[in-house]
Amino acid sequence: MNENAADSSLSKQFESVRRFTDRITASLSPEDCMVQSMEDASPVRWHLAHGTWFFETFVLKQEADYTVFDKHFSYLFNSYYNAIGEQFPRPNRGTISRPGLDCIREYRRYVDRELLSRLQSPDFVARHAETITVGLNHEQQHQELILTDIKNALASNPMLPVYEDREFAPSNGTTDSWAEITDGKYDVGHDGDGFCFDNELPRHTVFLPAFRISLNLTTCGQFIEFINDGGYERPELWLSLGWNAVKERSWNAPLYWMRRDGRWMQFTLAGLTPVDPDWPICHVSYFEADAFARWAGKRLPTEFEWEVACRSLTETRAEANTGQFADKLFAGGYAIHPTLSSGGFFGSVWQWTASSYQAYPGYRPPPGAIGEYNGKFMCNQYVLRGGSVATSQSHIRDTYRNFFPADARWQFSGFRLAE
Amino acid sequence: MNENAADSSLSKQFESVRRFTDRITASLSPEDCMVQSMEDASPVRWHLAHGTWFFETFVLKQEADYTVFDKHFSYLFNSYYNAIGEQFPRPNRGTISRPGLDCIREYRRYVDRELLSRLQSPDFVARHAETITVGLNHEQQHQELILTDIKNALASNPMLPVYEDREFAPSNGTTDSWAEITDGKYDVGHDGDGFCFDNELPRHTVFLPAFRISLNLTTCGQFIEFINDGGYERPELWLSLGWNAVKERSWNAPLYWMRRDGRWMQFTLAGLTPVDPDWPICHVSYFEADAFARWAGKRLPTEFEWEVACRSLTETRAEANTGQFADKLFAGGYAIHPTLSSGGFFGSVWQWTASSYQAYPGYRPPPGAIGEYNGKFMCNQYVLRGGSVATSQSHIRDTYRNFFPADARWQFSGFRLAE
Amino acid sequence: MNENAADSSLSKQFESVRRFTDRITASLSPEDCMVQSMEDASPVRWHLAHGTWFFETFVLKQEADYTVFDKHFSYLFNSYYNAIGEQFPRPNRGTISRPGLDCIREYRRYVDRELLSRLQSPDFVARHAETITVGLNHEQQHQELILTDIKNALASNPMLPVYEDREFAPSNGTTDSWAEITDGKYDVGHDGDGFCFDNELPRHTVFLPAFRISLNLTTCGQFIEFINDGGYERPELWLSLGWNAVKERSWNAPLYWMRRDGRWMQFTLAGLTPVDPDWPICHVSYFEADAFARWAGKRLPTEFEWEVACRSLTETRAEANTGQFADKLFAGGYAIHPTLSSGGFFGSVWQWTASSYQAYPGYRPPPGAIGEYNGKFMCNQYVLRGGSVATSQSHIRDTYRNFFPADARWQFSGFRLAE
Amino acid sequence: MNENAADSSLSKQFESVRRFTDRITASLSPEDCMVQSMEDASPVRWHLAHGTWFFETFVLKQEADYTVFDKHFSYLFNSYYNAIGEQFPRPNRGTISRPGLDCIREYRRYVDRELLSRLQSPDFVARHAETITVGLNHEQQHQELILTDIKNALASNPMLPVYEDREFAPSNGTTDSWAEITDGKYDVGHDGDGFCFDNELPRHTVFLPAFRISLNLTTCGQFIEFINDGGYERPELWLSLGWNAVKERSWNAPLYWMRRDGRWMQFTLAGLTPVDPDWPICHVSYFEADAFARWAGKRLPTEFEWEVACRSLTETRAEANTGQFADKLFAGGYAIHPTLSSGGFFGSVWQWTASSYQAYPGYRPPPGAIGEYNGKFMCNQYVLRGGSVATSQSHIRDTYRNFFPADARWQFSGFRLAE
Ligand SMILES: [Fe+3]
Ligand SMILES: [Fe+3]
Ligand SMILES: [Fe+3]
Ligand SMILES: [Fe+3]
Repeated sequence: MNENAADSSLSKQFESVRRFTDRITASLSPEDCMVQSMEDASPVRWHLAHGTWFFETFVLKQEADYTVFDKHFSYLFNSYYNAIGEQFPRPNRGTISRPGLDCIREYRRYVDRELLSRLQSPDFVARHAETITVGLNHEQQHQELILTDIKNALASNPMLPVYEDREFAPSNGTTDSWAEITDGKYDVGHDGDGFCFDNELPRHTVFLPAFRISLNLTTCGQFIEFINDGGYERPELWLSLGWNAVKERSWNAPLYWMRRDGRWMQFTLAGLTPVDPDWPICHVSYFEADAFARWAGKRLPTEFEWEVACRSLTETRAEANTGQFADKLFAGGYAIHPTLSSGGFFGSVWQWTASSYQAYPGYRPPPGAIGEYNGKFMCNQYVLRGGSVATSQSHIRDTYRNFFPADARWQFSGFRLAE
Repeated sequence: MNENAADSSLSKQFESVRRFTDRITASLSPEDCMVQSMEDASPVRWHLAHGTWFFETFVLKQEADYTVFDKHFSYLFNSYYNAIGEQFPRPNRGTISRPGLDCIREYRRYVDRELLSRLQSPDFVARHAETITVGLNHEQQHQELILTDIKNALASNPMLPVYEDREFAPSNGTTDSWAEITDGKYDVGHDGDGFCFDNELPRHTVFLPAFRISLNLTTCGQFIEFINDGGYERPELWLSLGWNAVKERSWNAPLYWMRRDGRWMQFTLAGLTPVDPDWPICHVSYFEADAFARWAGKRLPTEFEWEVACRSLTETRAEANTGQFADKLFAGGYAIHPTLSSGGFFGSVWQWTASSYQAYPGYRPPPGAIGEYNGKFMCNQYVLRGGSVATSQSHIRDTYRNFFPADARWQFSGFRLAE
Repeated sequence: MNENAADSSLSKQFESVRRFTDRITASLSPEDCMVQSMEDASPVRWHLAHGTWFFETFVLKQEADYTVFDKHFSYLFNSYYNAIGEQFPRPNRGTISRPGLDCIREYRRYVDRELLSRLQSPDFVARHAETITVGLNHEQQHQELILTDIKNALASNPMLPVYEDREFAPSNGTTDSWAEITDGKYDVGHDGDGFCFDNELPRHTVFLPAFRISLNLTTCGQFIEFINDGGYERPELWLSLGWNAVKERSWNAPLYWMRRDGRWMQFTLAGLTPVDPDWPICHVSYFEADAFARWAGKRLPTEFEWEVACRSLTETRAEANTGQFADKLFAGGYAIHPTLSSGGFFGSVWQWTASSYQAYPGYRPPPGAIGEYNGKFMCNQYVLRGGSVATSQSHIRDTYRNFFPADARWQFSGFRLAE
Repeated sequence: MNENAADSSLSKQFESVRRFTDRITASLSPEDCMVQSMEDASPVRWHLAHGTWFFETFVLKQEADYTVFDKHFSYLFNSYYNAIGEQFPRPNRGTISRPGLDCIREYRRYVDRELLSRLQSPDFVARHAETITVGLNHEQQHQELILTDIKNALASNPMLPVYEDREFAPSNGTTDSWAEITDGKYDVGHDGDGFCFDNELPRHTVFLPAFRISLNLTTCGQFIEFINDGGYERPELWLSLGWNAVKERSWNAPLYWMRRDGRWMQFTLAGLTPVDPDWPICHVSYFEADAFARWAGKRLPTEFEWEVACRSLTETRAEANTGQFADKLFAGGYAIHPTLSSGGFFGSVWQWTASSYQAYPGYRPPPGAIGEYNGKFMCNQYVLRGGSVATSQSHIRDTYRNFFPADARWQFSGFRLAE
């Protein structure tokens, strides 16, 4: 968290990030914001409160003159910080109705006011700029979770309600092209002055054998070939735990796909829509990505292969980002990512890598409660790279590490192949 | 369901019952109405829709000129009627946000209008009076569930929010008095022209040995003696399944009781309040009632002992119903039961009996889907008699059979002793 | 337990009962005796030790001069007597290998010697005859469990091994005949000097409406008609909990039935054999019995109807017991029941009744640990009457109450109809 | 599996490995060999059959003249090879009694005879030497599992029976010494002609930063300091999943440790014995190893750090292997590992590394069913290196990769620190 943006622009950033949260939740009813459709997801109202709780807990409460908004919130909206105290049980987040949505929005405004007024003080900025920057990145991560969690919530309703009506742009095809990277020592991990999370550090040297990596994300059309070739019925294509998941959960297609009148449809935030074969495949687990790769005679890239390839290839390709989104919801109106394409390394869908999520050599979590942010989750998760259509544009960097368990499917997750 | 009240008063009854549902839910937010705090309970919004669904499904849809409000509701708000079709999974009732509360209230108004206008027609009344009467009794049963379910929902929130603020009247003590009933043949089950449910029929003869029955409900003070005597720690006092429940769920007091600063407090719809030793004990399971009785050297009455005793004793005692309520919420303002007392046979708390819930000799469920109303639940449940502070006054009759599994505690359930 | 058989014949009885246990376990390997195929069942070795533990705990340990065989056994082989102490967890009975079968048999011989030598003393007999008689009836109950549990154990092995090879006698058809019983007051419960369990007391008066009861057990052929008529696919035929069981456990036939080459086969202790349509149906749950009765437009008799009918009908019919066994294993060689028939009230299969298992009016469990024998299980179980092919002949009496949960199928359980 | 030992010595190897299996199971009763004390473990009888099944399935059945011993065994003793066919459900391995232990031993002898006689033929050897060598290494892996599984089985018995009585040698202290390894490119993975598993290939280059690694295994005494410092009560020391495991399973010490009269005792194959502070810590999970390292201000080495350090250090230290075993069972009599010490890189206890179990760059599983041996398990497991007191000496090589889930504790697993 080597951030030193302690100047007045922090207020602007703060305003901008917080207002975007308001924007993406504006159309949701109090009832919508209550739903916890599965244990992995949280109610939108919880996200709204928790992002605010972060600023209150790690910044405002450090100030002697701050008056806590509600003493219960410390417990209710603590996600997993044991150093802060006990946490309300995660699976029950959807079963409490108070504070109501209005009260939570009032809580947000209260904390916004308290923080913004203090940001006038250079001393305050000096003390807290770094933590506030983490808090803004944290809020942005929860913006993405708001979108993935509400999508899951709406999908669990047999009426398949629409989050926001939107036209999908036509897709424009893909090509089969690969980049070759020579073997050698490469430096990976974050470098420079920009913000990064602790888990992107320290920058360090790795040795990579030569490899080839696809310039395109695997598409829905390619994935349908896998399905039609019995992909979900052939244990030899799957990791052992993956095959268990297929059997126990009766997986036979990506999450949110369903057959209607003989064709594949997918539920999106804009409602049910036909699967477009040229779109990047989305809402697949690591297990499905891995099985597809085995079926195709390829493999997934490691996170370092991805990072090295991305760095060497994106300078020229960035301009080409014109395209096909997994979920077109944001493509037309306010675009979270104006420059994403199916072929780009960034945006569209998170890309599963073959790398389990582990600490870089010499990694040290920051001291205090904030040390729980990333480090304690380095077990039984896989790294995803790139960012999705629901990711904040400012998170688009080649060293950013997202991570989820191998069976997670409700994120906007796809993959590209390597060999 | 031997009801023939096919006259104009049905409209008045309908209006009255439906408006009472509005009244007891008026103070609840859309968020409150979403909560399903456990699988046994349902969100208030679901109750609001389901009571309406009953009239739509069993009455209005039988009429050719009726236009369905929303085609999804048949599935979404069917509780357990297999003859009507599949049901949305009960444990997930709290995870769908649409239709929202406003829409559900609109649905209620729509069905009310459609039904009330048709009630002008004598032919319509002739065809449907019986079912509508069942529907109104059904709605009243769900009124009670709305109160017990929202109580459970609010209690699951660590902030312990209040449903409605209310003063509790002072209690006025109890005496230890018993009635003796001689042995002999008695007729039990419903008689006469009034409404009853199918499970109260047929009236039939039973032989009862002589017995004594307490004129008072067991009180909180008596139950505290049981607790202080190690009641929750002595397996010899418990049924085997009851002891399992004690261990697995760490029961050490009635539901909603908690120790604060060395004294027993209980959560009520009016918030946290000290336990009054003279109040009837409430929110205990059959297991706890049975264990208490064993500890006291007594037993629970059978449902027929209760019914016979009630019939022979209540004529003179009805006037004495002035009293102590388990949950005082409704005692002051609009009283559901103006005449209940701790000593009365009716109201205050449902009374567990020693009788498992079974069919009377010659019982036949009504034909069609409505036959699923009661009959299919006659397994692994115990009969409760009397009615609670949350029961509709019109349900107060000596033959009414309520029933719940032996471990249920979230109803307003207490007991009286026999020997 | 109003038994006064304190004379020398107790030794003979003891010898006879204990030797029969040896006989029915003689063909089982140490491995066979280890298997616990489900939580409800126990390993044969556990039964062998537990029956012995009963005599050691309740008789021998009361004597000052007795030396305990092994101090661990008090814990290991206590089934559910909390007054004796903690119990080794029931679900883990199959996971401990020591003491081995040889040691358990040595334990049996040790306790036999100790008990038999003391039975020479009239004082000892006077003190313990009643408990020893309970212990022998207890041992006989576990003999039946040995057979039902080893059947379940062998059936869980895909090799379907045979307990004992045996020819099945040809069946000789059934007729459709019914007895009519007039209404009136009847006395039920045990009477006279013979042994009975506490739950058969006190004898008391009940009033029964007139009823008809089938003179025949429902047969496999009749049950196949039910299956062919969609019996397992029509929710309207089932109790709600029964329908849940059908769905969750994928029931589509009685336990141990399987289709092979287009015909129904059943696994028996003599191996796989075709289903004979004239045999009584066996290995059905209360749910299946109840659903069949509903399908047939009849019902199950209550336990008192069964008892009254049995008493008035069996004098003349006892001679006719020549017959059709559910499981023919014992029909040829040593017959547990030489006089059973498909039409008889006794033997062949236990008969589910419509009565849940509850205390008789005035029931008191015996004092001390033995009071846990029956009383604490009076919840969520149904009474079966009559006795099966695996029941000891001396348990054949019209007041004997067996009891199992409504979903139990591994006992030799069938039913007869009433109306 | 680059093995070319196709000469006559294969017979000798085969004899030697198979006889050692007999030796370590000779003292076990048929009952002992039945126990499956948890889902992760298997009954000894299953191991005995499965090791044999491997040779029958992958070697003998390829020969036209071979007659299968029993057609059911293909299904019963297939562990997880989907290409071979369905498998008997793993959690039920302990619930089938046939074939009995005698029959399984006969099966072993039959397959031994069939294989040994064919080994006379050079053609047969040419065809199968490679697979037979895998089979022998497989058998040796199951020898270790036999020991760990029977230890778990015996430990689950409250009588704590002894597998084999044995004196424990005195321990001789440890020192605190560390080795320094400079940064640079290193080659890791198997090299040369000796046998290795597919997951040790291909040999490839990695870049390692400089690091220090302890020359000693962490000891019981050091771990007791961690416990006494609240190690199991401080969430900040644990991975998130690890802390869940601590809470849910009530971990407060290594597996098999228990307090008796104020001191730590541990259950071993030789029975209960005091914990010796100088012994290497054993039976800890990855979570505990990781938490200890965090508490100590160190970390676990990666698998490549371990391998590189081992290779550069063991030439001189191999002679020093005289010592302290985690479980002294084998120290006195027949030693599986005559040369192990607490300070050695090999033997004593498997050593958790920080590396999750993943494929080496360019890894390809072998074709056919045997490709399921290792590859499909490369998810959510951690690599252990070194080998334990229960590992075959011939598995002692610096590239051998053992792997278990992060919560596994029943293996002989400890760790060394790095920084
Ligand atoms: Fe967060
Ligand atoms: Fe209802
Ligand atoms: Fe018993
Ligand atoms: Fe294996």
